Amino acid sequence: MIEELDNMRGFVIGRYQPFHNGHLEVIREIMNDVDCDELIIAIGSAQVSHTLKDPFTAGERISMIYNALSKEGIDNYFLIPVIDINRYAVWVSHVKSLVPKIDIVYTNNALTKRLFIERNYNVRTPKLYDREQYSGTKIRELIINDGAWKQLVPESVATIIKDIDGIQRLKDLVKSQ
Amino acid sequence: MIEELDNMRGFVIGRYQPFHNGHLEVIREIMNDVDCDELIIAIGSAQVSHTLKDPFTAGERISMIYNALSKEGIDNYFLIPVIDINRYAVWVSHVKSLVPKIDIVYTNNALTKRLFIERNYNVRTPKLYDREQYSGTKIRELIINDGAWKQLVPESVATIIKDIDGIQRLKDLVKSQ
Amino acid sequence: MIEELDNMRGFVIGRYQPFHNGHLEVIREIMNDVDCDELIIAIGSAQVSHTLKDPFTAGERISMIYNALSKEGIDNYFLIPVIDINRYAVWVSHVKSLVPKIDIVYTNNALTKRLFIERNYNVRTPKLYDREQYSGTKIRELIINDGAWKQLVPESVATIIKDIDGIQRLKDLVKSQ
Amino acid sequence: MIEELDNMRGFVIGRYQPFHNGHLEVIREIMNDVDCDELIIAIGSAQVSHTLKDPFTAGERISMIYNALSKEGIDNYFLIPVIDINRYAVWVSHVKSLVPKIDIVYTNNALTKRLFIERNYNVRTPKLYDREQYSGTKIRELIINDGAWKQLVPESVATIIKDIDGIQRLKDLVKSQ
Amino acid sequence: MIEELDNMRGFVIGRYQPFHNGHLEVIREIMNDVDCDELIIAIGSAQVSHTLKDPFTAGERISMIYNALSKEGIDNYFLIPVIDINRYAVWVSHVKSLVPKIDIVYTNNALTKRLFIERNYNVRTPKLYDREQYSGTKIRELIINDGAWKQLVPESVATIIKDIDGIQRLKDLVKSQ
Amino acid sequence: MIEELDNMRGFVIGRYQPFHNGHLEVIREIMNDVDCDELIIAIGSAQVSHTLKDPFTAGERISMIYNALSKEGIDNYFLIPVIDINRYAVWVSHVKSLVPKIDIVYTNNALTKRLFIERNYNVRTPKLYDREQYSGTKIRELIINDGAWKQLVPESVATIIKDIDGIQRLKDLVKSQ
Repeated sequence: MIEELDNMRGFVIGRYQPFHNGHLEVIREIMNDVDCDELIIAIGSAQVSHTLKDPFTAGERISMIYNALSKEGIDNYFLIPVIDINRYAVWVSHVKSLVPKIDIVYTNNALTKRLFIERNYNVRTPKLYDREQYSGTKIRELIINDGAWKQLVPESVATIIKDIDGIQRLKDLVKSQ
Repeated sequence: MIEELDNMRGFVIGRYQPFHNGHLEVIREIMNDVDCDELIIAIGSAQVSHTLKDPFTAGERISMIYNALSKEGIDNYFLIPVIDINRYAVWVSHVKSLVPKIDIVYTNNALTKRLFIERNYNVRTPKLYDREQYSGTKIRELIINDGAWKQLVPESVATIIKDIDGIQRLKDLVKSQ
Repeated sequence: MIEELDNMRGFVIGRYQPFHNGHLEVIREIMNDVDCDELIIAIGSAQVSHTLKDPFTAGERISMIYNALSKEGIDNYFLIPVIDINRYAVWVSHVKSLVPKIDIVYTNNALTKRLFIERNYNVRTPKLYDREQYSGTKIRELIINDGAWKQLVPESVATIIKDIDGIQRLKDLVKSQ
Repeated sequence: MIEELDNMRGFVIGRYQPFHNGHLEVIREIMNDVDCDELIIAIGSAQVSHTLKDPFTAGERISMIYNALSKEGIDNYFLIPVIDINRYAVWVSHVKSLVPKIDIVYTNNALTKRLFIERNYNVRTPKLYDREQYSGTKIRELIINDGAWKQLVPESVATIIKDIDGIQRLKDLVKSQ
Repeated sequence: MIEELDNMRGFVIGRYQPFHNGHLEVIREIMNDVDCDELIIAIGSAQVSHTLKDPFTAGERISMIYNALSKEGIDNYFLIPVIDINRYAVWVSHVKSLVPKIDIVYTNNALTKRLFIERNYNVRTPKLYDREQYSGTKIRELIINDGAWKQLVPESVATIIKDIDGIQRLKDLVKSQ
Repeated sequence: MIEELDNMRGFVIGRYQPFHNGHLEVIREIMNDVDCDELIIAIGSAQVSHTLKDPFTAGERISMIYNALSKEGIDNYFLIPVIDINRYAVWVSHVKSLVPKIDIVYTNNALTKRLFIERNYNVRTPKLYDREQYSGTKIRELIINDGAWKQLVPESVATIIKDIDGIQRLKDLVKSQ
């Protein structure tokens, strides 16, 4: 990690179920923004796991992201789980209380953008990655159906999913619906 | 940060209201344990702030610890806010879901020890620092009464408390009781 | 407001997302019930906002209703936000604890009716307004698609929605799905 | 009830909305397992009632099961409501804290199985009853449409549903959607 | 109620257990502030009742305040129950979402002041009433001990407390501690 | 268990931390009430455990009571954990939804009595046992200080506390304060 004191800090949030190459692309792009010295990566819906939409725990997602970014040589970031509060009117205050001071919010989500702008944050929109190809929903379906998902995620993410028996977990979740 | 894959990971939890030299001493000692390659530092009662017992937000406490450890050249750790669940029977599962895999728990708290041992974790007790001198309660009282608290915390912690108007915040909290 | 002591008090609940002419018609009809001297208007799902189904905060909905009723010269009512409790078995007790004493419940909803009747309340069913024309869902869709929604709500409601940038809020909510 | 001390205790969980002949068949089969001396019957989603999917309160479901098992001469069981916790990562700990010590888990649900196996429980899969014929969803639909549902539940369950005005309750729930 | 559109709106919050002459004095003073056309009176800890510290429901407190203000000829106010959120970091957002737009906050509480000032609200401090004489704690004790409490509250408040059997409720609460 | 259909059912609630001879005396007395054919024994604060005030889980308390009553030959009861709801205004509805239909409430607690009477329940007050001698607080202190507690609880309760390492658990809880 680098020195903090006069650093500008970016903020990005996702569910990362799982962390994929599209997410990595966005983080790389933000890291190239000269105004962003450090990045807060917030892991949304941190309390949820073992569902079809959110199969992995926050801890497992932290491991995925940490390993993937280590491979990239990226280390100037904070990785912070954010539990859902389910009330958008207080959501920005909730996030703000859990993370270090935010200077720039990076998001392509219209609601996230609106909520932070209403609180006078500086919001930037990173270039969109190919959402057709890189999509958590699609990757989870490919995992369930033994499709070609490994090339869509960083190699270390595939390793972790295997280590935690994540493929079978997803298949069990389909069966128990 | 260092490579993760075969690393052994320690776990330590505190409220860090604020982070003081006693906490730092414990972290240094754990870092000297040859069995611990990486440390998960969990910030307890993460949802609480602006009370006499818990004046600082989780985000503020993350900044304190990050800056203090940077000064020490320590960077092989995860810094993770943990919201209270107020049910000890599920507490270990709650923590486990929010952090990367834990190999060794470091704690001097009898209840934390018991809860992790009941779940078959490897628990170690770091040497106790001088609790008479280094105590969150005492430091908060010294801040309120303009006492000599700065020498009890890392320099960067004192700077952050000043930057966030923390001294006046504590004085307001006393008045509003 | 009028004198309370021997007054009979009615109760009506809705989400009012937004308050429209159908709602106004029901309130006018209840006000014409000679047995109802004062009306408690409860704003349901008070904690929700910034979703497609519930775009407006409770505070915004209070402003809508207050302004619309002022225009009508209606002032003998209480306007009370009621947060969801998500357990119908305790819902009547929940509502009862948040509002002044209820004498008559006005509702066309079969579940609300059943829950209050099971607790021995006097329940009356106001005449149904044209639900084809006046529907929150339909009005929200018209707002999103720049349709003809303004004639379906009181003029002051349209003004407030514009003042709080409500049209763009709804469009952002569609985009962020 | 029989003596507890060296008894082996089974565990089974369901929503029982309502308790039907398929459920009874599973309980009879478990009772025939020579390794199971006592059975913990957990009533899931205990806090929910008065919805189309979960029309009956936990208390009503307890009455249904108690009466049905009395008729069968089965009395070596515990009947325990379990409120949802909505976080699968802590769910086993939650259940464990609410019921007496579990020796064997009986379940056909892939997720329940996985969650208990991950915590090293002994899990067995009872023979599946005819899910086409015995299904809570189907029975609730038959009740709403005045279909032939009574032969699908124990006689005492039909009596209780009638006593608590359950048929009309379900019809009201359909209307208020 | 008066016309809203260009009106300036004040905000005051209390638990009002019960509403007493000190509270009334503050409201009268705020009403005399030429900058305040309408007042939002928020009823804090709205979800609590039947405890020694908070004996009355939000609905009962609404009745108390409404009757007392009616007697004073005051009618330009909103009376809004606010449920505790127990997280000061999001508390202002929580309140803001439940009430109409606030222009001026009136408070003597150091924490409330700090929280609103941190969100850039205009905060004013009304003159303090005699807290020795007018205190909820003291009034509740006088009620329990058959002391001289009636002169400390508006007459209509004493009437309501009697109507709802509030004196015996408080005595029961003492006994059940 | 006995036949339910025309049976009268009593209700009693306690925290049972732990279940002691005073509790047993009350249950025996209720069982002697000719109007009470079956007893619902509700275990309050069911979600709490591992604290000095509430050391045992609901499941452990169920085992204690079940074993103690078995020894007494008592078997016509329901044993139901009730999670705290922390809002007395809805508490009776909460309890009612979790247990079979209640005919008579047995309680010496003034608040419980008041809450059920306000909902028109038939409430009876069992004769008080010697609260000086039989007190959960006192028994927990005796356990911690190796005092003479075993004669104050049924023998099977002492056995269970020993089996679950409850003595050391309480001692750890004291140390971790």
